[in-house]
Amino acid sequence: MENIAYYNGKISSIEEMMIPMNERSSYFGDGVYDAMFTVNHVPLALDDHLRRFYRSAKRIDIDIPMPFDELRELVLDFCRRIDSPDAMAYVQATRGVGMRGHAYRFAGGRPSLWVWVKPDALDPMDRAYKCITMEDTRFLHCDIKTINLLPSVIYTQRAEEAGCDETILHRGDRVTECAHSNVHILKDGVFRTAPCDNLILPGITRAHRIAQCREMGIPVVEEPFTLTELMDADEVFFTSASALCCRVREIDGRPVGGRAPELIRRIQAAAWREALEEANGQRWE
Amino acid sequence: MENIAYYNGKISSIEEMMIPMNERSSYFGDGVYDAMFTVNHVPLALDDHLRRFYRSAKRIDIDIPMPFDELRELVLDFCRRIDSPDAMAYVQATRGVGMRGHAYRFAGGRPSLWVWVKPDALDPMDRAYKCITMEDTRFLHCDIKTINLLPSVIYTQRAEEAGCDETILHRGDRVTECAHSNVHILKDGVFRTAPCDNLILPGITRAHRIAQCREMGIPVVEEPFTLTELMDADEVFFTSASALCCRVREIDGRPVGGRAPELIRRIQAAAWREALEEANGQRWE
Repeated sequence: MENIAYYNGKISSIEEMMIPMNERSSYFGDGVYDAMFTVNHVPLALDDHLRRFYRSAKRIDIDIPMPFDELRELVLDFCRRIDSPDAMAYVQATRGVGMRGHAYRFAGGRPSLWVWVKPDALDPMDRAYKCITMEDTRFLHCDIKTINLLPSVIYTQRAEEAGCDETILHRGDRVTECAHSNVHILKDGVFRTAPCDNLILPGITRAHRIAQCREMGIPVVEEPFTLTELMDADEVFFTSASALCCRVREIDGRPVGGRAPELIRRIQAAAWREALEEANGQRWE
Repeated sequence: MENIAYYNGKISSIEEMMIPMNERSSYFGDGVYDAMFTVNHVPLALDDHLRRFYRSAKRIDIDIPMPFDELRELVLDFCRRIDSPDAMAYVQATRGVGMRGHAYRFAGGRPSLWVWVKPDALDPMDRAYKCITMEDTRFLHCDIKTINLLPSVIYTQRAEEAGCDETILHRGDRVTECAHSNVHILKDGVFRTAPCDNLILPGITRAHRIAQCREMGIPVVEEPFTLTELMDADEVFFTSASALCCRVREIDGRPVGGRAPELIRRIQAAAWREALEEANGQRWE
């Protein structure tokens, strides 16, 4: 099949799945989500993503109505069942269905669980990307992966309108992250990235790249960096579930990076090796 | 009938209305809304609310797929058709249905229009309310009435858990607004309220109270005020579509206001007179 969706026990194609209007997602964006990409039908870093999903839900008092292992099996099963070996797997939990009202303790609804898998592909690492920058005007809970994503929609739209791939956000001079990925720089051999506070999402791919770089002896510094440091970096790259390590070549129309090509290629090679190892269910070497 | 809902041409009860899972509200909160309360089947300040609704939509590039006058008639018709003379009328526009993806220019979907009316009542003005305070951690687009409302859900929940009615928000020492209403103070005969910038919603009821107070010769100052000034005010009150002018008697467990009872009663009386005039379709005197 081309794609497959689950909503509170119902299964159908994504396009055919109907939900009650009175879902609290409809009125409040009252929910959390996570997303993974597959290689050869295997969702990368599945356990990490699902652990973060349960953590996100807990942060806003949502009790995901399915145990971890059962959800894990459901996602794996869907990834195996669809035709495309390359896919995006999506999980979402919302506070459920009930008459609109801000408070939820007396709403009485049971949380809803949403899962779907559709064909999609990792962002290629053999090209370099173009970004714009925008002021980061989001709420102060960016460490929780909620579906209050309207700012990210607008940021991404503006990038597309500019013929670019991503939007790098900053609060004043401090670079935070992108519309839907984390952003990092290489400078004098050091991997620099913003720390995990309430201003950025603690990216799973970010954490994997950091761990790999430390293993490879590349120093990692998790401290705020500025727009000036971004523009002056040896390399700029972003990471997300779909972007294992994507090099940036232009920001706001000005060329950036390109001064540590071997180092970035080493990080990209390690990223791809890890993905293949996981997809093949074995250590690569 | 008890309640009635409209979604993209379909009509049913609110509870029975189903929508596609792939609504962009489901994934991004990619939409705007407005709400009105009725007295004797008449939605108060309908034109003001609908004008704000079209303005909100325009701010995020959504073209509401129904002309103003037609939507106006639809809302009025629904308000007349349901059994309860006291009701809440709700309108929402989302960016429509399509496979999940942040950018929307190439999504190709047509915006969705949602309308429903359900029994509900204005917050009584013959009681005084209890509030808590919380740091305002929302995004910097609070002047747009979007459905990215998760922070407001949490703020309201915390108020309920504390046995209170509303949460007054502040950025540092500066009072902004409440979880779902505007907040104001009376001090030395002056009506003080935060200015309409990107930190608060330009409340319709707020604007009506300001206009009425000016007519009555009560000075109005639209400038930021602090938590200290809030706690030291002669009276504290909040306004929203459901709260014409609701007096606050306690904040974070400490008594507030109560020092200008005649002035607040004058404002409440004017508010109620305006509502009745509108509900009766005529000037009151």
